[in-house]
Amino acid sequence: MSRNLLLISTSTTHGTGYLEHAEQQVKTLLEGKKSILFIPYARPGGTSHKDYTAKAREAFEKWGISVSGVHEYDDPVKAVKEAEAVFIGGGNTFVLLRQLYQNKLVEPLRERVQKGMPYMGTSAGTNVAGRTIGTTNDMPIVHVKTFDALQLVPFNINPHFQDPDPNSTHMGETRDTRIAEFHNHNRQPVIGLREGSMLRVQGDRMTLMGPHSARVFLQSEKPMEFKPSDDLNFLLEVYEA
Amino acid sequence: MSRNLLLISTSTTHGTGYLEHAEQQVKTLLEGKKSILFIPYARPGGTSHKDYTAKAREAFEKWGISVSGVHEYDDPVKAVKEAEAVFIGGGNTFVLLRQLYQNKLVEPLRERVQKGMPYMGTSAGTNVAGRTIGTTNDMPIVHVKTFDALQLVPFNINPHFQDPDPNSTHMGETRDTRIAEFHNHNRQPVIGLREGSMLRVQGDRMTLMGPHSARVFLQSEKPMEFKPSDDLNFLLEVYEA
Repeated sequence: MSRNLLLISTSTTHGTGYLEHAEQQVKTLLEGKKSILFIPYARPGGTSHKDYTAKAREAFEKWGISVSGVHEYDDPVKAVKEAEAVFIGGGNTFVLLRQLYQNKLVEPLRERVQKGMPYMGTSAGTNVAGRTIGTTNDMPIVHVKTFDALQLVPFNINPHFQDPDPNSTHMGETRDTRIAEFHNHNRQPVIGLREGSMLRVQGDRMTLMGPHSARVFLQSEKPMEFKPSDDLNFLLEVYEA
Repeated sequence: MSRNLLLISTSTTHGTGYLEHAEQQVKTLLEGKKSILFIPYARPGGTSHKDYTAKAREAFEKWGISVSGVHEYDDPVKAVKEAEAVFIGGGNTFVLLRQLYQNKLVEPLRERVQKGMPYMGTSAGTNVAGRTIGTTNDMPIVHVKTFDALQLVPFNINPHFQDPDPNSTHMGETRDTRIAEFHNHNRQPVIGLREGSMLRVQGDRMTLMGPHSARVFLQSEKPMEFKPSDDLNFLLEVYEA
């Protein structure tokens, strides 16, 4: 297992530009690589594959990495098989996962990642790296035949994790309540990544990066807070079973 | 078409008890009825069918209406066919819709409602009255074979509708953005019901009730605000087509 992943909660934190807050970690992930394959399927705000890829290209080119969009290839499977690295951007998780299945990219992505190809995701692209998309915040605007995701890690991820607002009069469920409900039907751990947080996975080691702690939810246990210096490797264990 | 519906955004507004804010409208809906069948499948916070039904029972008994839970019957289809009225409570929309399909209640509910049986829903129970559950705010904690809902009305509903917080630094999508993304893939109108709002549908007439305006989203158009006194009947038109 030579996984090499960077799973980022959000592409853009308040007051910084696209991917800026993760620049150092992206550069480390892609050390020695000259290109990355961008998968724009999540289409944030309905933006086109072309426009979304242009946005990613602008960011990576500053760092000396060329970007191609997977939609530019006649054979997207071949594009994944030959990529130096892959980046899946954020948007709608259901739209993204449906397109990954329609274009038969789920298995090829898993295989390449297991053999060490660097993978990075933001938001929906981080969500689909988990076991299922069952902890996405997105609206189910299209139907997907299964919620099983890429399973690059054996747990679920909740990006854009938000703490409850103590002043809110809103009666909708808090994120903690929603994840507790998830655990009435699912066993795998869930990690809530606050904005600015990211997970770096190298083989069987995992590190939390960024300024915040992360909230870890295990079935039938109280939520726990983990700081960036804490050991999170236990969350990777099921994968090897 | 003799629909008789009360679609409530939330069971409990800030500072009021369960169903209290809708008491008058519930009493009007159920005028002349002595009992209601409660469908507790959405299980808010994972609460049991039994406990959830007890909560509903407590509220309705004060108003002289007896409550039975659909789970108390060996044959839930028969229970729906013989009910004087039906109430579907809130919780998780995916869990709810899955159970409705598993117990084959979707068609019987449609048929009874079309023939005039009073129907009320709160939150998830309001969501499933719409065309699909594609505008739920809930996490997809279980998979459902289709997002098609009861289709008691021909549009989609977004309960617990929230306006963006102008002071927020959170980078997740606003509700408006999510619904705009929905309209990249779906044609039907969406109505955002703020907490305390409800829709009263009688045949081909629909009225917004409660203290707030509602936000209506039509494909390719700017969102519009409708006050309780405004005409919303146009949203029912597709149903008859």
